[in-house]
Amino acid sequence: MVRQKQVLVIGFGRDHCPAEAYKVAFRVGAAVARKGAVLLTGGFGGVMEAASRGAKEAGGFVIGIISQDSKSQANDFCHAVIATGIGFARDFITAYSADAVIVIGGGAGTLIEIAAAYQKGIPIVTVRETGGIADRVVDTYIDDRRIAPILGEATAESAVTRALSILDVP
Amino acid sequence: MVRQKQVLVIGFGRDHCPAEAYKVAFRVGAAVARKGAVLLTGGFGGVMEAASRGAKEAGGFVIGIISQDSKSQANDFCHAVIATGIGFARDFITAYSADAVIVIGGGAGTLIEIAAAYQKGIPIVTVRETGGIADRVVDTYIDDRRIAPILGEATAESAVTRALSILDVP
Amino acid sequence: MVRQKQVLVIGFGRDHCPAEAYKVAFRVGAAVARKGAVLLTGGFGGVMEAASRGAKEAGGFVIGIISQDSKSQANDFCHAVIATGIGFARDFITAYSADAVIVIGGGAGTLIEIAAAYQKGIPIVTVRETGGIADRVVDTYIDDRRIAPILGEATAESAVTRALSILDVP
Amino acid sequence: MVRQKQVLVIGFGRDHCPAEAYKVAFRVGAAVARKGAVLLTGGFGGVMEAASRGAKEAGGFVIGIISQDSKSQANDFCHAVIATGIGFARDFITAYSADAVIVIGGGAGTLIEIAAAYQKGIPIVTVRETGGIADRVVDTYIDDRRIAPILGEATAESAVTRALSILDVP
Repeated sequence: MVRQKQVLVIGFGRDHCPAEAYKVAFRVGAAVARKGAVLLTGGFGGVMEAASRGAKEAGGFVIGIISQDSKSQANDFCHAVIATGIGFARDFITAYSADAVIVIGGGAGTLIEIAAAYQKGIPIVTVRETGGIADRVVDTYIDDRRIAPILGEATAESAVTRALSILDVP
Repeated sequence: MVRQKQVLVIGFGRDHCPAEAYKVAFRVGAAVARKGAVLLTGGFGGVMEAASRGAKEAGGFVIGIISQDSKSQANDFCHAVIATGIGFARDFITAYSADAVIVIGGGAGTLIEIAAAYQKGIPIVTVRETGGIADRVVDTYIDDRRIAPILGEATAESAVTRALSILDVP
Repeated sequence: MVRQKQVLVIGFGRDHCPAEAYKVAFRVGAAVARKGAVLLTGGFGGVMEAASRGAKEAGGFVIGIISQDSKSQANDFCHAVIATGIGFARDFITAYSADAVIVIGGGAGTLIEIAAAYQKGIPIVTVRETGGIADRVVDTYIDDRRIAPILGEATAESAVTRALSILDVP
Repeated sequence: MVRQKQVLVIGFGRDHCPAEAYKVAFRVGAAVARKGAVLLTGGFGGVMEAASRGAKEAGGFVIGIISQDSKSQANDFCHAVIATGIGFARDFITAYSADAVIVIGGGAGTLIEIAAAYQKGIPIVTVRETGGIADRVVDTYIDDRRIAPILGEATAESAVTRALSILDVP
């Protein structure tokens, strides 16, 4: 069985998400769905919610992997919810579950997910000029092992295409 | 948005799964799919694999939530894989993510998932006479708080129907 | 370097701890300290607090391994606090960190810790007639693998002596 | 009860630890012990081992919080070992358990621990010119919230003194 690819979208949470980043995330989610990939998010607000809405409206399948122990804490745009109950240690689970990661802005939690994915060699693509952590880490390596660079693309759509092309998805 | 219910199937792992339990688990998975619920499992062999095969063949959606940090460790019948990387602490995540739990035999790990689900008041239904932990805990309460009894049903199909009826799924 | 043995004491939490179980736990903690072992607990109230007080008054060293992400949530009798932030998945960490486990009453969470320790073959000794899970599981095996039986001793002191004798501590 | 402060030392692991960083970490561990604080580490090699040796030789108490599920995986210089079994999600536990963090070089895992501690507002002090992540993050904020800057000190001893002075330890 060939499973669908799982694309994780991370970035600004509800309290720090500019309107522009929200729009970009919506388009990223839609592009993930159109490519036939499953969308993974942390299941909360901001970028996570926007990407989930975009994927859902485009007919995709959305899984929210939340830090809390009750599924009711997820946003309203998840088809399935994984309630980890392990707090922000959840960031390792989102990362390890991803075939590829798209980054839109973000803060310290986003950086943790990037670093966890980097350690596994999972491809990471930022959408350029979305601010926060995305703009800080783009075109760099997370550490001196230089496992793989953090890539950047100019648009939501090209970021998804780039990430999936690394996985040999046309 | 009304999400599909998520039914967790637990029990004997690969090394301890009698052929009869495997067949029962296959039928449980198929029944979960026919009822329109998402199947959750721990993503390995034995009961987990059998239920996943049953659900997949019946057209359902299967999520494997594995203890390892690499999705490649899951069985071949998952539509999506959550790679937790947290070892058997994963048992809390499967439990917390379930709307209802079906038990087919099982050992100490199955007991942990039952106890975690019990603490949350999540409905638990065993298939009777499948051996192991299922037969030990049926018709009892896990502790003196008597939150909810562990129920038992005679067949794979009636176990799924019972579990979903508690959730008001016809 | 020969490390001190680490003895985990588990059982009734604050809301369900009879006065008699509290006294037994205090004596268990004191006996652990007198034997020169480090006391591990889940860092909360009830049996955990009582054992910690007993060990501390007897000059022992106490480590509380709590489910929350802030050390301030621990009881006042810990020399060191490990703030896991992973909720009750913490029960695996207490179990895996134990050289031996002493059980005084307890509910579903206690059962989870017992089952996790059992899977690792870690010796488990209950104090008899302390109620709850301790009395249910004593003299049984957790599952059909029969890895090791749950032992029982009549007093706090003999439970500690028994547990440590299995570890070759005189 | 006033608990001893818990100082976490993080940085290069066994495979990437220059001899100079090992020496600095040894001195950091010794300084932590002389100040009467408990040393926390991830329990492995490199900086973790060196700091543990330094603290142990100076008469301190050392707790190794390891990612594996077996205490035997820890280095030989821990007085107590917490076996989490949750893989590198353990990095959140070391961070949350720290009153202060000292950084000596390090890679992606070190960055995760820094980001987790930063989110909690836990003081973080690097030893300058130890390479790796330490030199990259010093004098910066991890994200735009600017919760607290990553501090830097020239020597092992001044880093420990600085960290503890923030906690009002003379």
